[in-house]
Formats: sequence, C-alpha cells, structure tokens
Amino acid sequence: MGLQAAPQPAPWGCRARSMGLGLGGPEGPLSGAEGSVGRPTADPPPPPRPMASLSAWRERVAAELDAAIAFWERHSHDPQHGGFFSCLSRDGSVYDETKYVWLQGRQVWVYSRLYRKVPRFRRPEILEAARAGGEFLLRCARLEPGSPRAAFALSRDGRPARVQRTVFSEVFCALGLDELGRAASEPCYRVSRTPGPPPYLGRGWGCGGRGHPLFWGQIPGRSASPGPAAPRWGAPAVPDARVLAVAGCRTPGPPPRQAAAREWMAAVARWAREAPQELGRPQLAGAPPHEALAVPMMVLGLAEQLRDGDGGDDDEGLDELAAWGAQRLLAHLQRGDSVVLENVSPDGKELPGSMGRLMNPGHAIEAGWFLLRFAQRRGDEALAARAIAAFIEGPLRRGWDPQHGGLFAFLDADGHCPTQLEWSMKLWWPHAEAMVALLAAYAHDRRPERLEAFQRVADYTFSKFRDPEHGEWFGYLSREGNVALTIKGGPFKGCFHVARALHMCEEMLEELLREG
Amino acid sequence: MGLQAAPQPAPWGCRARSMGLGLGGPEGPLSGAEGSVGRPTADPPPPPRPMASLSAWRERVAAELDAAIAFWERHSHDPQHGGFFSCLSRDGSVYDETKYVWLQGRQVWVYSRLYRKVPRFRRPEILEAARAGGEFLLRCARLEPGSPRAAFALSRDGRPARVQRTVFSEVFCALGLDELGRAASEPCYRVSRTPGPPPYLGRGWGCGGRGHPLFWGQIPGRSASPGPAAPRWGAPAVPDARVLAVAGCRTPGPPPRQAAAREWMAAVARWAREAPQELGRPQLAGAPPHEALAVPMMVLGLAEQLRDGDGGDDDEGLDELAAWGAQRLLAHLQRGDSVVLENVSPDGKELPGSMGRLMNPGHAIEAGWFLLRFAQRRGDEALAARAIAAFIEGPLRRGWDPQHGGLFAFLDADGHCPTQLEWSMKLWWPHAEAMVALLAAYAHDRRPERLEAFQRVADYTFSKFRDPEHGEWFGYLSREGNVALTIKGGPFKGCFHVARALHMCEEMLEELLREG
Repeated sequence: MGLQAAPQPAPWGCRARSMGLGLGGPEGPLSGAEGSVGRPTADPPPPPRPMASLSAWRERVAAELDAAIAFWERHSHDPQHGGFFSCLSRDGSVYDETKYVWLQGRQVWVYSRLYRKVPRFRRPEILEAARAGGEFLLRCARLEPGSPRAAFALSRDGRPARVQRTVFSEVFCALGLDELGRAASEPCYRVSRTPGPPPYLGRGWGCGGRGHPLFWGQIPGRSASPGPAAPRWGAPAVPDARVLAVAGCRTPGPPPRQAAAREWMAAVARWAREAPQELGRPQLAGAPPHEALAVPMMVLGLAEQLRDGDGGDDDEGLDELAAWGAQRLLAHLQRGDSVVLENVSPDGKELPGSMGRLMNPGHAIEAGWFLLRFAQRRGDEALAARAIAAFIEGPLRRGWDPQHGGLFAFLDADGHCPTQLEWSMKLWWPHAEAMVALLAAYAHDRRPERLEAFQRVADYTFSKFRDPEHGEWFGYLSREGNVALTIKGGPFKGCFHVARALHMCEEMLEELLREG
Repeated sequence: MGLQAAPQPAPWGCRARSMGLGLGGPEGPLSGAEGSVGRPTADPPPPPRPMASLSAWRERVAAELDAAIAFWERHSHDPQHGGFFSCLSRDGSVYDETKYVWLQGRQVWVYSRLYRKVPRFRRPEILEAARAGGEFLLRCARLEPGSPRAAFALSRDGRPARVQRTVFSEVFCALGLDELGRAASEPCYRVSRTPGPPPYLGRGWGCGGRGHPLFWGQIPGRSASPGPAAPRWGAPAVPDARVLAVAGCRTPGPPPRQAAAREWMAAVARWAREAPQELGRPQLAGAPPHEALAVPMMVLGLAEQLRDGDGGDDDEGLDELAAWGAQRLLAHLQRGDSVVLENVSPDGKELPGSMGRLMNPGHAIEAGWFLLRFAQRRGDEALAARAIAAFIEGPLRRGWDPQHGGLFAFLDADGHCPTQLEWSMKLWWPHAEAMVALLAAYAHDRRPERLEAFQRVADYTFSKFRDPEHGEWFGYLSREGNVALTIKGGPFKGCFHVARALHMCEEMLEELLREG
C-alpha cells in the first residue's frame, strides 16, 4: 500500500540545547521575551575551519550561479515589450507568455544586485535588462494609474491579467526597483521622479470607494515610537516627517507622484499593519483573523533592503518597520519556541484547526536568516541565537525527510497529515534558503554542526535539483527525489531563490575564506 | 535524476476508430457539429456477456459502498450543530472542524439518494442525517439572509468562513436539497416553503451594490428558445413563465421566499450564462474571458437532477438548461474531437498558453457520462457515441499513466509539463468517475473493450485507493501509486465521489445481470 510513517525528527548533527531567547539590541528589549541571556554559555571553542571544503563549495556555487544567470539571460528576456518570461521549459523554451509581477520584481533585483556587487556580472547588458524589467513594472504593474495596487499577472504586453488579495506583488516591485536604483545610481527608482500630489489623493483605490490619503497619514501601528497622534481614516492629517521619509520625502510636503520603491513600501506597510481589508478579501464572521508568516517576513526583508547602507534620516522609519516585522515574526514561534507556525492570530496566539497548525519549514528557515541579519545589524546576540535555534535549526530538524532526505513543503505541528497535496514534495526554494541560512549561522557562531548541516543540505540540493545539461534548477521533486515537474520556471518560480542563494553563499564563503 | 518521459498513450484495448459526432435528438441537431451520422457503422456484434465477472464486481462494489457509508455515518455527523465534518483522518478522527459547503450538499445528496433508491439504506437515521445536513445548509450556507450567494466554508457552528468566486457551493446546495426533497417527500426542499417576494428583491447581493430582480428576469442566454424579449439589467421585466417554473413557480407571480433547490439553480444558471461578474472576480484587460469545463458540466448535471422523473410543466426550462450545458460542454472538444480542454473562450475557441492547453482527464470523463445519460434520455445516439468516444475513451487513453497506471490529474494538450504541482498524482475521484463512465458506456453499446477498460480501472482503483482497515478510500496517491496523504476527507474530499460511483456501478451491474 505504500503507507508511509509520519516524519520523525532526523538525526541532525545539531545538538538540542537551551538557548538565549530575546529581542534586545542597543535600544533594549522590544518585547517581553523571557530568558534573554545573551550569548549562550558553555559554547565549545571554535573548531579549526575546514578550508578545503569551503573553497570547493565556493567554486561549485560560483559556477552554478553563472549557469543559472546564463539560463535566464538566454531565455527569459522579452525584447519586444520588456520584462521577463518566467514560464520556461527544461531547455528554456517559453511555454506560456504570462508575466508574473512577483517574478519581474525579483529578476530586476537579482540582475541589479549582481551588477552592483559581483565584478564578473558588472556588464552593461545585465543592467540594461534590469532597467527594461523595472521600466516594464513602472509602466504596467499597477492595476490603474495612480493606484499602488499591483497585478499578480500581466499579459505579455503588460495588461493586468490576475490580481491577488495580498501584498506580495507590491513587495517585489519595491524590492526590485530599490536595488535597480542602487545599481543604476538613479534614485528615481527608489524615491520619486516628479514632484506633485499623488494622483490618487482623494480617489478610491481598493478601499471600498473611499479615498485614502496614504502619504498624509502616519504609518499605522507605530506605537513603539513616540510621534504625532495618528490621524484617523479620512480625517485631515498632519504629515509625519518620518512617514514621508519612508515614502521618499525628507520633509513634509507634497509627496512624490511617480511610482517608486518607497511608495510601494508605504502601501505594503499600511496593508500589513492596519488595513488588510483594503486588499479586498472579505472579513467573514466564521474566519478568525490571522497573520501569515510571509507578511512580517517580507516587511522585515523589504525594510532592510530599502535602508541598506543609506545611513540617512530615512532610516528611522525603516528601522521601526523592520523592528515591527521582526517582532511579529517572533509571534509565529509557539509552544515554547519549538514550532514556527505559518498562521497566528493578530495578537500572536495559536489558531485552531489545520490552518493554525500549519508549518512550512522553508518559510521558517528563510525568515530565520532575515532575523539573523537583522539581529547582527543591531548587535542583538540573544535574538541572533534565537533566530538560529528556533527558526533555522528547529525547522530543519523537523522538516527534513528521514526516509528520502530533503525538506518537506508543509507539516502539521500535531503530526496530522497536511491537506496540501504537495506537502511531501521537495521544492527548490526551501533548500536554497536553507543553504543561505546554515552558512549565515556558521559565519555567525562558527559551530561545526552548522557546516555539517550546510554540506548535507547542499549535497542533497546539488545532486537533486540542478540540471547540468541546460542550467538552472528543477523546482519540484517528488518525495522520493525524482523530478516531478520538468519546468525551469512557472507562475511561482523565476530568477530569484537560486540566484540569490548562490550569490549570498558565494559572498559568505569568500568572507569565511578571507578570514582564514 | 529520475527524469520521466512525457506520458504516452497507453495501449488500451479500445480501438481507435472514427465515430459519429453530433448532437441531435428528437428535436434535431442543436449545433452545427459535423459528421453526425448516428450509430457508427460496422460495429461488431455484441459479444457474450461475462456474467461471472459482473457478478463478482457487483458484490465487491456493494460491500465497498457499505464500508464507505459506515465510515461517514460513524465519524462525520455533528450532533451539536448539524451538518458534517469532512476533515477526517485515516481512522475517521476529526482533525479540523471547518464545514465545507460543497461537501455538505454532496453528503445530503448521497444519503438522500441511497435512502430513496437502495432498500438496505432505507433507514430512518440516514434520512435524519440528510435532513440535519439540509437544514444546516438552509440555515447557514447563505452569506447573508436573502442572498443566493453561499459560502465555500463555514465554521463548525455555521458562520461563513470563506467564499469562492464560483458557482459550485450553490450547485451543491441545490443538488443536495433537491434529492432530500425527493427522499423525504417534502417538496419544500425542492421548491419553496413560504410564498412572498424574495427578501433580496431591490437589494444588492454581489453585484456592486445594485439590486437585481433575479426571478423577474428571463434566464439569460436562452436564445435557442423563442420567448419574450429579455429584459435589460435593472429595467422592469415581464416574468417569464418558464423561468419562474425553474425557480419553483408554475405561473408568473411572487416567487418563493425561502431558499430551495430551484432558487439556487436559477442563480447558478444566471451566473453561468450571463452574469459571471456578479460572483465578484474582476474582469481584467489582459485576461481573455474563459469558460471552465466544470461550469456547463454542473449546469447539465444539476438540471438533469432537478427534472429527473418529474414530468411536469417545469421540465421545459430545465430541459433547455440541460441542453445549454450539453452544447457548451461540446465546445470544450477541440482539435477535431481529439482533446477535451478545461478552459475555452466563451465562443468556444481554444485559448493561448498553459490555461488554454490544460486537460483534466477526470473532469472530461465525468462530463462524458453526464453527456451520455443526457443523450440516452433524448434518444440521441450520435451524441451518445460522441460522448463515449471523445469524453470517455479519448481522455482515458491520453490520461492513463503508461508507467505506473492510474489517471494523471492534469495534462497539457501539447505535451508540455503542466504547472499544477499535483499533475502526476493519482486522485481518487477521476478513478471513481471512470468506473461509472466505462460501465455506462458498456451498458450503452456492449462493446467488450469497455468492460475490459472498466476492469483495468477498477482493479487499479480497488487495489490502490481503498483502505480495508478503516473503510473509505484514500484520496491522493503519488505518481507511483503510494498513499501521499493519509486523510480520508478534507476541504475537497467528502462523502460523494466514492459513494456515488459505487452506488451507480452497483445499480448498473444489477441491471446488466438482470438483462442476462
């Protein structure tokens, strides 16, 4: 019958241990997390670093990144309309011309980041392709002129074809444009192009026909930072300098008219923190309100992207947004930090039923390295340790298939069978994110078991997902590790997780090797 | 690497042959289908019937039906709030209390049909459970009092938790209540309870705030039948006797106030035929309008259910609806009847991209036996032959996995890899529907290859899906035929396909055995 036992924790090298839990940085604890004890005591001394292995992985990772980018450069560009095809067969041929906004923004980010950071990718054609993608988004992503709501899918020529009632299209527009602005040294992608009032002031967009003065109101939920009283919906509002800063204006005054990363960030922050109903999903009496892990994760990641290295006045608002994201991520840690749940109540409680028990190990691990980087920037060692133990180590241990290897796509915290048909499939992105997370954890605390875990995940990933014949990775394997879908790209797989992970791993491996 | 070849047609016993294509009955052809030649010529003479095998299958099927119904009776009833749990683990324990409206209506139908048709199920507790389910739907399914829009999911106590922008919740409310009315001999479930104008006349429901006089307008799209001019949206309308008949009123006058099967049917017909925008899905410039196969399939199936055996004046409107469904189903036959596509344009053309090429063999086969029954009722032999050849034989041949057996969940008409992650999984319901379709085809034309195909599908199905330990079937197998999800029920699997298929197979096998 082939009935398979419920997955058991894998015999990971990682020792189970109690660890410091907390979220405190230079500004002190943000939440009442108990047991904030800083760096765990009785750590073993750092072992000798396995330089040969690191060096071999740097070579493999760099070559794989080259192959992946070559695949997307060769097959995904649309010279006619701009933007990128993502529905690519194994050999790169286009099997569907739909353009997915998430994947447009993500590919703009990847090209721009590589151009900016990696000398061998500093080629004009990479930047030009990123710019063509960014201009396509600016021209076509919005559902209507002046609205910050972006489509989920566009026709090849850029007409809206599908819309999701989530924030993620807007997140990836902002992510891509911000990085493009840095790579091209053109701030217009990051802030504003032309001054003047935004055309949607006084108009309705996705909020039941009522106009909302987005940039004239305080970014909601910022109670942790004292500031002017928050204006109420529809009431005349006093512009808040920090909010306007987030939106691209350093002083109160007419906000920018042209779409740019910060405008989208402000919209995402509003929808995530106060006004999810503006996204159009009905609130029904029998459905408990819930927050999906991806929302604070993306708010944190996007705020960190937008503030990265700027060091200007803008940073305060973005810092506060990032801290909000981090704090809300921690609310998804439940049952004494032993599980990361995909959905919790807005006040951070576990929800009943399958939705409440759902775990996505890949999401948890990705959130783990977002949190770790945030903690490192703030010098918050307790949070860093908690991110590694609870968001990376735990989900990797629980999520690893003891029978066939690889990370499950979904699990149920009580051991029930998930209802997602693909729960036991092995998807590319959790494995790519786990490689990043484990190397980041190793770089942080130099515990040898992190490197062992990295090698185990990377061995599985390179042996199962990569396609040496055509480049890029397969995205979807069966539980047993066979390729289940031969596509290289589709509605949810584009040029992002593979390239970002390989680039980050290469960067971290170089850093580790430099340090010797 | 485990790369698997694209599926090839299986070496089915069914001979490839040209067949009569057409849709003509006593009323003559409904469409311009070419090659309508009636019963195919040069059919082989009926072979001797393999009575022993039929008799053995009747025993297996009946015992399996008993085990399935025992499972749902034992585990799914909610004595506190009425209605049925469908999220049941392998052993029947409830892992989530959400109540799915599709599955409520379907279980009401199954219990009522078995009570009405199968002597061993004519037990008061079966009817009482059906009634408790029907009353739960009448009390709780609607999104708001007076609106025909039904929720997709309800909390255990019946508050709306999720809504879909499709017609299927309403379809299954109507299906269940109509059969309950027949089983209980209580017409109130089928037509109306109390007279008086429907409370939503002049109110808005799902149509952008504009009230719509549903029952006072002609059922749209009935151009094939001459009648009074169709009233325009919002204009004063002349009631059409045939429309009101569908809604449960034999003469023009105030329509029924209480929810009943025919009211829901009228709403479904309106949404399916003229006003899909009232379901709330935005129409976007970059998305070509499309019709999903399931919509005309369910309109046909529901119209046939509602008119079944009534023989009254109501039948004319329902006949016309059924004919509309049949005709629109035929529009999904493309490429010279060689493929059944899930989505086509409203004017019956193939659409570009993955969506346009998508095939769901299970859906095609289920639609095949709906069409076959419709054709048999009308005495339309050409349509019956076309239903068998193009909707049953073809999709079974194309959809069967030559490597591991079983029907694929999805395929691409051009042989690309589908983007649905579960495309190669083996789901219970296509196999249940194929058993019904093949036995119905055999009962119709007595060609021995139908029975061979039935045996092959039934052997696979009984050996892979059934759970001799706890009863009912597993729903989801891997491509290789291993149980991928151990649940017996979930958001989309309840007490329906297994029970309906086994009941229909038992009924057909008995009929075949009686005929000797």
